[in-house]
Amino acid sequence: MKAKPVGPIPEGFKAQGGELFVGGQTASDLVASAGSTPLFVYSRELISARVRKLRDALPARIGINYAIKANPFEPVLKHMAPLVDGFDIASSGELQLAQNAGVDPARISFAGPGKRGEELEAAISAGVTLNCESSGEGERAIAIGQRLGVCPRIAIRVNPDFELKGSGMKMGGGAKPFGVDAEKVPDLAKYLINEGAEWRGLHIFTGSQALNADAIIEAQSNVLKLADELARLIGEPLPKLNMGGGFGIPYFPGDEPLELDAVGCALHANVADLPESLQDAELCLELGRYLIGEAGVYLCRVVDRKDSHGVTYLVTDGGLHHQLAASGNFGTVVRRNYPVAIASRFDAEPSEVVNVVGCLCTPLDRLADLAHLPRAEVGDLVAVFCAGAYGATASPSAFLGHGSAREILV
Amino acid sequence: MKAKPVGPIPEGFKAQGGELFVGGQTASDLVASAGSTPLFVYSRELISARVRKLRDALPARIGINYAIKANPFEPVLKHMAPLVDGFDIASSGELQLAQNAGVDPARISFAGPGKRGEELEAAISAGVTLNCESSGEGERAIAIGQRLGVCPRIAIRVNPDFELKGSGMKMGGGAKPFGVDAEKVPDLAKYLINEGAEWRGLHIFTGSQALNADAIIEAQSNVLKLADELARLIGEPLPKLNMGGGFGIPYFPGDEPLELDAVGCALHANVADLPESLQDAELCLELGRYLIGEAGVYLCRVVDRKDSHGVTYLVTDGGLHHQLAASGNFGTVVRRNYPVAIASRFDAEPSEVVNVVGCLCTPLDRLADLAHLPRAEVGDLVAVFCAGAYGATASPSAFLGHGSAREILV
Repeated sequence: MKAKPVGPIPEGFKAQGGELFVGGQTASDLVASAGSTPLFVYSRELISARVRKLRDALPARIGINYAIKANPFEPVLKHMAPLVDGFDIASSGELQLAQNAGVDPARISFAGPGKRGEELEAAISAGVTLNCESSGEGERAIAIGQRLGVCPRIAIRVNPDFELKGSGMKMGGGAKPFGVDAEKVPDLAKYLINEGAEWRGLHIFTGSQALNADAIIEAQSNVLKLADELARLIGEPLPKLNMGGGFGIPYFPGDEPLELDAVGCALHANVADLPESLQDAELCLELGRYLIGEAGVYLCRVVDRKDSHGVTYLVTDGGLHHQLAASGNFGTVVRRNYPVAIASRFDAEPSEVVNVVGCLCTPLDRLADLAHLPRAEVGDLVAVFCAGAYGATASPSAFLGHGSAREILV
Repeated sequence: MKAKPVGPIPEGFKAQGGELFVGGQTASDLVASAGSTPLFVYSRELISARVRKLRDALPARIGINYAIKANPFEPVLKHMAPLVDGFDIASSGELQLAQNAGVDPARISFAGPGKRGEELEAAISAGVTLNCESSGEGERAIAIGQRLGVCPRIAIRVNPDFELKGSGMKMGGGAKPFGVDAEKVPDLAKYLINEGAEWRGLHIFTGSQALNADAIIEAQSNVLKLADELARLIGEPLPKLNMGGGFGIPYFPGDEPLELDAVGCALHANVADLPESLQDAELCLELGRYLIGEAGVYLCRVVDRKDSHGVTYLVTDGGLHHQLAASGNFGTVVRRNYPVAIASRFDAEPSEVVNVVGCLCTPLDRLADLAHLPRAEVGDLVAVFCAGAYGATASPSAFLGHGSAREILV
């Protein structure tokens, strides 16, 4: 049977004693210490290494924000706190998670197109910066600030007229529910400043999951140009500019890692030549997936091995209730295989072509189609890589009553 | 701007005082009594009416099972308990939910391709019927029964060589992770009977979400034929046959309701002419979506109303974290609009074309594209229909920290 390729296993995962070895423990030991499969394992070492790599490539004045939505596991937030400069949240629930992890609200900014009144209130009270998504939201924030007697810290999220080319999800270019159309930004900014808000500048997010450095470089140059134009129309130097993120990671066969050095090099040039309006601006990137995505692996156990009409199925105790994106059911049209391996035989040679499925009673629950893997038996562990971001919380964990996966940071 | 059609609003939803009226309460009153939006409302009356309609159409000897996976909300299970003949579960988590709702385990059967050892043990101890999915699982069940000193009740789930044509998800025809290929069933059945299991017959599930009566009639005839063939090869009359489900509901523009009377009529003829092997078999259908899907509505509130490049967006406090399928991200390739309305202006004439989106910070979070609706303001309530099945639990409720929706049965 002809195999389908699987995605590339990220750097930093090796074998020891024949098993996948993460954070000084074998897959079996990780499962034993966590209690059972299914299990998300996140590596401190790989997260830290990724942030170091970014710091090395980027100009020193470019701050790094972590977008909590990618992975809000409390130990991850605590590990990130000293590594990054800021945190981005998308709800008052995420504000609570960040505060539980000890993050200072002054380091937090809040974007999201549907902020409810009580969310605005919680954020303004705590001193979080709002990335304002519409004139209506701006008015509500001002009114809440006045009622509470707190000066709201407000930036404007801009819906730019350009997009991040080749990005997995486009967040700019044309009509969008996110942010304020660029041409409406100056009036809204003046209104907010007039009403006494603490003006925190602009947030310009153009897309996500791009692997092409040239596309990111172009988008970042456009972001700086647009920020300059808007700052001049607003009539004040920009206090802060969140340049968005968009740095992708390789998930699928043929994906090549982003050339970070090229992006860093272009940013160095841009930063050396900033227009006057941005000279004193705090500049930052907002990254989620790029910081944590490749640092996580999902482990599940083979519960059954069966044959149907000549096709071998490894049925695991994991599935789309924890790995919706890997199953091909979240934002993808054509399903392709994530990087997958037999964690308990990590250095064995591939010897058969199998379908790896989850335990859910639906044909949507696939973890790998026709993957060429070492022979696995009931009890073996399967690893799905690139599981650090948009895994546990971006999946329907209550579906079919199997419950949430365990998570550990090692 | 040209509108895109929305799906058909199910029967039984009317306006009172200008608002959507369900279970004797207006949408505003429902939200007030539940506490807040977003909210799933399930109607006892509509669930009961659907079961009555089925009883009227089907032969009396055809039992009706409820597949808990469609909606495991405890009040729903308690309401279903006296209405239906049996319950189908897909995990030991669902067993727990059924037991919490007071369902007698003797009325429960358990299908699912990746049953873990502890799940088999819990089910066998409780006296649940296992729908055995492989020879390996059969051996494990026998061993557990022997160890516990309990005679396991076992049926075999068959992977038939035919499928339910036009079904949303095919569960038969070719290689599948579900069930035992038909030709292997007789040997496995003999093994189980020999080992002293209580033989509970066959489970043949061919697909789901079919709206074409002829396709269902053909699949059901094929199921009866296959069951007869297998029973004769096994050499015993069949004690029970779960004929599967597959009855669809209209979600999208142009979908027509299943002609239930035609299905019932064909089943009457089939039941009047059963082969000897099936004469004494308990027969049942296993339905989830068809029993509860149209009886539920999801209510969310407009949090912002904004314009971007000439397109109006209603941004709600709901979204794909509760309504993944309605957003077009669960098992669908091309997104189409579910039935959607402004619940707080349910009898008003449509007057504008708008995009209805959720509050999540992702372009995937869409509830209706270019829907022709009455003008809605911040504070108005949006209803998404067909929300009774595969809504709350089949969505990533932890995503972005907004939390789960509330649920009420009225």
